[in-house]
Amino acid sequence: MKFKIAVLPGDGIGPEVTAQAIKCLEAVGETFNHQFTFEEAPVGAIAIDQTGDPLPEATLELCKNSDAVLFGAIGDPKYDNDPSAPVRPEQGLLKLRKELGLYTNIRPVKAFPSLIDRSPLRPERIKGTDFTIYRELTGGIYFGEKKLNKEGTVASDLCEYSEAEIERIAHQAFKAARNRRKKLTLIDKANVLETSRLWRKVVTKISESYPEVALDFLFVDNAAMQMILNPSQFDVILTENMFGDIISDEGSVIGGSIGLLASASTGDKHALFEPIHGSFPQAKGLNIANPIASILSAVMLLEHLGLKDEAMALDCAVEIAIKKNIVTPDLQPESKFGTTEVGDQIAELL
Amino acid sequence: MKFKIAVLPGDGIGPEVTAQAIKCLEAVGETFNHQFTFEEAPVGAIAIDQTGDPLPEATLELCKNSDAVLFGAIGDPKYDNDPSAPVRPEQGLLKLRKELGLYTNIRPVKAFPSLIDRSPLRPERIKGTDFTIYRELTGGIYFGEKKLNKEGTVASDLCEYSEAEIERIAHQAFKAARNRRKKLTLIDKANVLETSRLWRKVVTKISESYPEVALDFLFVDNAAMQMILNPSQFDVILTENMFGDIISDEGSVIGGSIGLLASASTGDKHALFEPIHGSFPQAKGLNIANPIASILSAVMLLEHLGLKDEAMALDCAVEIAIKKNIVTPDLQPESKFGTTEVGDQIAELL
Ligand SMILES: CC(C)[C@H](C(=O)O)[C@@H](O)C(=O)O
Ligand SMILES: CC(C)[C@H](C(=O)O)[C@@H](O)C(=O)O
Repeated sequence: MKFKIAVLPGDGIGPEVTAQAIKCLEAVGETFNHQFTFEEAPVGAIAIDQTGDPLPEATLELCKNSDAVLFGAIGDPKYDNDPSAPVRPEQGLLKLRKELGLYTNIRPVKAFPSLIDRSPLRPERIKGTDFTIYRELTGGIYFGEKKLNKEGTVASDLCEYSEAEIERIAHQAFKAARNRRKKLTLIDKANVLETSRLWRKVVTKISESYPEVALDFLFVDNAAMQMILNPSQFDVILTENMFGDIISDEGSVIGGSIGLLASASTGDKHALFEPIHGSFPQAKGLNIANPIASILSAVMLLEHLGLKDEAMALDCAVEIAIKKNIVTPDLQPESKFGTTEVGDQIAELL
Repeated sequence: MKFKIAVLPGDGIGPEVTAQAIKCLEAVGETFNHQFTFEEAPVGAIAIDQTGDPLPEATLELCKNSDAVLFGAIGDPKYDNDPSAPVRPEQGLLKLRKELGLYTNIRPVKAFPSLIDRSPLRPERIKGTDFTIYRELTGGIYFGEKKLNKEGTVASDLCEYSEAEIERIAHQAFKAARNRRKKLTLIDKANVLETSRLWRKVVTKISESYPEVALDFLFVDNAAMQMILNPSQFDVILTENMFGDIISDEGSVIGGSIGLLASASTGDKHALFEPIHGSFPQAKGLNIANPIASILSAVMLLEHLGLKDEAMALDCAVEIAIKKNIVTPDLQPESKFGTTEVGDQIAELL
């Protein structure tokens, strides 16, 4: 089969890790006889440098006309100390999510047994951890009205949700839970927020259509504790945009390296795949960045294209590489494998 | 000296643990020749049962006319599954914070060396952890306008902050940092939120008056990782209401038991002291609840009253009890000490 993939390497280590994911997809193509064409476009700080716009129109068009988007990372230190600069890299990502209608962000977290010693948590706490976060990605306080009065002394952000916005991602999450351990945890702050109460009401109603899935609720403050005290209790987590941002980054520490975690952002028409790590500018060009998050994003991309066996093969190749200690220094301080070498070996294992 | 303390034991284990704190304050009074008078009033679920109101007018009046408020815990399972019930225990606490003007919530977190094995984190990660969170407590999305449309299909919560609200707590936090390790970390989401950008601007400006304090910034998602990966990097953390709720509960796992953590909520006129744990209704009446968080709240209360030596003495008594393993089963599964016994022993150590 033929597929057109839009590649948005972005900033920092984005290009390096994305190159490894492409390498692996090409290997998948050869082995399974598919043809992937990759077309590249700028986004983020590099796009601002080139065009003044963190999401140039041509980049957005390319994404809209592709079967999937492979995304690297964005962000550059020169914007970090001035988050109020009128044009900033992150705006590119937020606009892309909104324009492509990517309302469901899926972040799987699991503890690789062979890496258990890398985790900041004690082994007995993380044993059996294997959950997936469904984070709403195009609503809430991220996209609500923002105000600053003329004098610059009062600011506000509006967090807003509609029934329809909650329903569409809730169905995705319940379907996922039905195919897993059949448990769904809604994280909210319903004892304080009106939006959370709407989430609870809508999700409770939808749960009637999924009687085989057990639904429970956790206040976000308690969830932030449970994530560390007992992460294996979770199966599918469903939550709104801001809480999802915090809780999923927190969850990312469990596995020992954020360099292992992939994500898929999906909507009704489009889908984008990216590591959950950032652009890690200090590591740029040093060939030390862990490409596994990007390669696992390619696994999710293959699944999305309906290529189940192909996804499984690439996933296995990653697992074998980790077991064989073919990993970057973040996982094995004395490792001789750099970003490129790990990519080469995984592609070869296919 | 004479002091009048308003005691609001609240729900669940609140009354049991508060009784131990009172016991210790009475012992302090005897040893140091002060006279504490304790006057009790209902709040939370128990107040709803008695009066229909989670914060009866008489309770609020008592708090306003006391030198300090000692608070237990609130919350009851019969409200937990229906967070949209028109009258709920938490409303009592939120209204109390607002009415007393308690805009600064102070939550110290440290790892007791003798309890290091109780932590879900590996010992090498938590060594040296000793930080204090300054959480804004009467603003932000907790108190902004809440809306639900007539059809019940669209909900919103407004997060609003003014310069003045940020300034007053920022000064508190900088002063605290000046007396500690001289580092202040502002946690925000300035790459997305207008309110966060205002926080950054105001806090940066105020930092000019505290040149000896090093200021840095952390996005809340990154902070949720750093809290687990490297908690000893923090000295004073300053943050807004909602982020403070999440991050401080997350930080509470470091020490091994949330039953150890106290908090002070202060304003220009009043101050309230409470454990950060909840009402833990399953443990009610079983004499197993850890009273240390409540006793350490009493330590903070003594400090607030200007009784430094007294505070230090009680703090030492707690440390000795922990070292001697005079602790409840949450810290020592085979412990023979219950809530009352731990309270007795600490009072006696004085
Ligand atoms: C870069 C930032 C705007 C973004 C977010 O907050 O959504 C990032 O943290 C993420 O989680 O993808
Ligand atoms: C009970 C609840 C409203 C409260 C809060 O969210 O502030 C609690 O979690 C706390 O942190 O004191």
